[in-house]
Amino acid sequence: MQDRHHVVVVGGGFGGLQLVKGLAGAPVRITLIDRRNHHLFQPLLYQVATTLIATSEIAWPIRSLWRDRPEVTTLLGEVSDVDEAGKAVVLRDGKRIGYDTLVLATGATHAYFGHDEWEPFAPGLKTLEDATTIRRRVLLAFERAELEEDPDLRAALLTFTVIGAGPTGVELAGIIAEMAHRTLPDEFRRIDTRQARVILVEAGPRILAAFSEDLSAYAVKELERLGVEVRTGTPVTSCTEEGVVIGDQFVGSRTLVWAAGVQASPAARWLDIPADRAGRAIVGADLTAPGHADVFVIGDTAAVTYDGGKPVPGIAPAAKQQGAYVADVIRARLSGDKPPGDFRYRHQGSLATIGRRAAIIDFGRFKLKGALAWWIWGIAHIYFLIGTRSRFAVAWSWFWTYLSGQHSARLITQKETLKEKG
Amino acid sequence: MQDRHHVVVVGGGFGGLQLVKGLAGAPVRITLIDRRNHHLFQPLLYQVATTLIATSEIAWPIRSLWRDRPEVTTLLGEVSDVDEAGKAVVLRDGKRIGYDTLVLATGATHAYFGHDEWEPFAPGLKTLEDATTIRRRVLLAFERAELEEDPDLRAALLTFTVIGAGPTGVELAGIIAEMAHRTLPDEFRRIDTRQARVILVEAGPRILAAFSEDLSAYAVKELERLGVEVRTGTPVTSCTEEGVVIGDQFVGSRTLVWAAGVQASPAARWLDIPADRAGRAIVGADLTAPGHADVFVIGDTAAVTYDGGKPVPGIAPAAKQQGAYVADVIRARLSGDKPPGDFRYRHQGSLATIGRRAAIIDFGRFKLKGALAWWIWGIAHIYFLIGTRSRFAVAWSWFWTYLSGQHSARLITQKETLKEKG
Repeated sequence: MQDRHHVVVVGGGFGGLQLVKGLAGAPVRITLIDRRNHHLFQPLLYQVATTLIATSEIAWPIRSLWRDRPEVTTLLGEVSDVDEAGKAVVLRDGKRIGYDTLVLATGATHAYFGHDEWEPFAPGLKTLEDATTIRRRVLLAFERAELEEDPDLRAALLTFTVIGAGPTGVELAGIIAEMAHRTLPDEFRRIDTRQARVILVEAGPRILAAFSEDLSAYAVKELERLGVEVRTGTPVTSCTEEGVVIGDQFVGSRTLVWAAGVQASPAARWLDIPADRAGRAIVGADLTAPGHADVFVIGDTAAVTYDGGKPVPGIAPAAKQQGAYVADVIRARLSGDKPPGDFRYRHQGSLATIGRRAAIIDFGRFKLKGALAWWIWGIAHIYFLIGTRSRFAVAWSWFWTYLSGQHSARLITQKETLKEKG
Repeated sequence: MQDRHHVVVVGGGFGGLQLVKGLAGAPVRITLIDRRNHHLFQPLLYQVATTLIATSEIAWPIRSLWRDRPEVTTLLGEVSDVDEAGKAVVLRDGKRIGYDTLVLATGATHAYFGHDEWEPFAPGLKTLEDATTIRRRVLLAFERAELEEDPDLRAALLTFTVIGAGPTGVELAGIIAEMAHRTLPDEFRRIDTRQARVILVEAGPRILAAFSEDLSAYAVKELERLGVEVRTGTPVTSCTEEGVVIGDQFVGSRTLVWAAGVQASPAARWLDIPADRAGRAIVGADLTAPGHADVFVIGDTAAVTYDGGKPVPGIAPAAKQQGAYVADVIRARLSGDKPPGDFRYRHQGSLATIGRRAAIIDFGRFKLKGALAWWIWGIAHIYFLIGTRSRFAVAWSWFWTYLSGQHSARLITQKETLKEKG
């Protein structure tokens, strides 16, 4: 085993896992390194943040996926650099792991467009900890409002602002509004949670810009029906503990959530190759790093285009297609077969939900909205979860919410509890 | 409603909830104060710590339990004192909440017998955060061992010590041993997790002292079958980052768990009344605080005896009986009916599990051990969970583990990840 071609994969997201799957049976040994012990099904992370499902329902220990693949070694470690000359990745504690072929699939994190000082007030949503932080803040805001006697402060505690109206922002705003209007009203005695304001702010001209204009207009109508105020064409110019400035108007809002921008992980910097504005490594048509034929970059940390120049979106299906493609390239190189042609992204469509009963689907030619779209969205997401256990658990949580209106995981956990009292 | 008799309950554990339930329909208004937003089903907390079930499966938002009881107000707040003269509880932020009748049901926390400096190395198990801390440390120990090349350090990383052999200690040790021997072996490539040592240390002469001697002997045999080393009659004399001193022998062990002692919450101090050695308020035969007829103390924070002097154990059924009893006393006082006699604890029995297939049950006359006892234990615990959702979710997690040998919630979350590298 030790003398086999050694593929090192950094990152156990959708791209990294698909690559390892694609190499099943190939004459390689694989080392998969991630700084977390779990793969995260990010498309449903917003449901953890909004108390619908539990953390463990969308996260799986990466190493448990390869119990039947003795050639795959999983390591918990944080890569801090790549030594291309020495053909090794360097871990933060100085350990080096040599490779024959390297695949960087290290993803992206949220970006504040030069305003990192906003992060403490407007957390983003990329990890399980981000999700439990947002969950805690949303729930604590209602708790504090119940105790608060100053009406202005109470109003600010009951104002929730979501910044950025892509699918994640829309999904978060919709569920928070539903919580305030449908789940919580009977449980508070001093406040009326239906008075809560949920504001969705988008700097661009319309929400869900990846969808067609009519679907985007439908989404606005559905959000407004749920009680969300949608503000487009106005950027957020400041985030503080007290609230948010939208354009030039200050809005008292104690709970802010950031869903506006992403920044690639530093893979391009490790390799010292050019990157685009969002930090994504600009790769060749076969997804190799320029000048490094044995280094591939895939997923959210790679800048790839399709259909004559459109950027490949940072979504799970794109990362999976790239992982599968690179597995084919590595196989062809090892067997001496003709390599596959350039990577070609096939866009399968865009999906987004608005609250618990409506969704929009844009497959280009085929478009759908409403309850049927929601069912298709739900079934597709359950199908893509890993393993029977999670499929069953998420389906049960949803079914339970559907029947009872109650959420499964309304927990305030970790510190901060009451500390930063309004 | 505002002119009704005001019952303030501090603590949403088993005792506090049972009291609120018992007052349904009584001519009172109730304010229930807890510093957490959730009620926790502590008897299964060890299963969260050992990755078998998810946090949200055993925790419910307290306020959601009273949605149909408009006379019950739930507040998230931390009580820091009682003003008996002014008949008010004082919250940490200075807010005061007046009462006509006060019930303190504030529980207990773990105690280190004057060695609080051990806590960072040997966390106890009382809250959800404690459980995720232990879960993280156990999982990280295996991860670090996989990366470690020094054999001594690797052995210390693979040595787990549980201090205290009551039901919680026995349950933790059993599941950790099962993980090492049955769940994890196929997932690691450099270490053999079956080499892991799990040591259960008890200062007293035998484990599970609340059970009969033959059941306790059976538990030792079952634990040893799972691979646990049981050491009785030797106290732990030191806990450090490197390991533990058992008697006068140092054992390198990077993961320690404290299950040895409890300390009552400071209710007795707030009331300025006598307490026993564990800090529990010594209450009257009707569970009132001496000299305060309108203040009751119940559950783990009260020292109560039965059968001519035996201490009532700190278990859920005891707290529930006390909550129900105090509700009866309050009802009788308000209606002018004859008050119930002194509180009498009825001990229903003791249960403990050893691993995933064996348990012991001691109902005094009726004793049971083995697989059937495990099924009874399981059904009883599912029955006592609150609500259909949780019953179903826990049953599913167990069923899944039973079928697949896999655990549902093997997540390393929160900071500390890799920081304190061995």
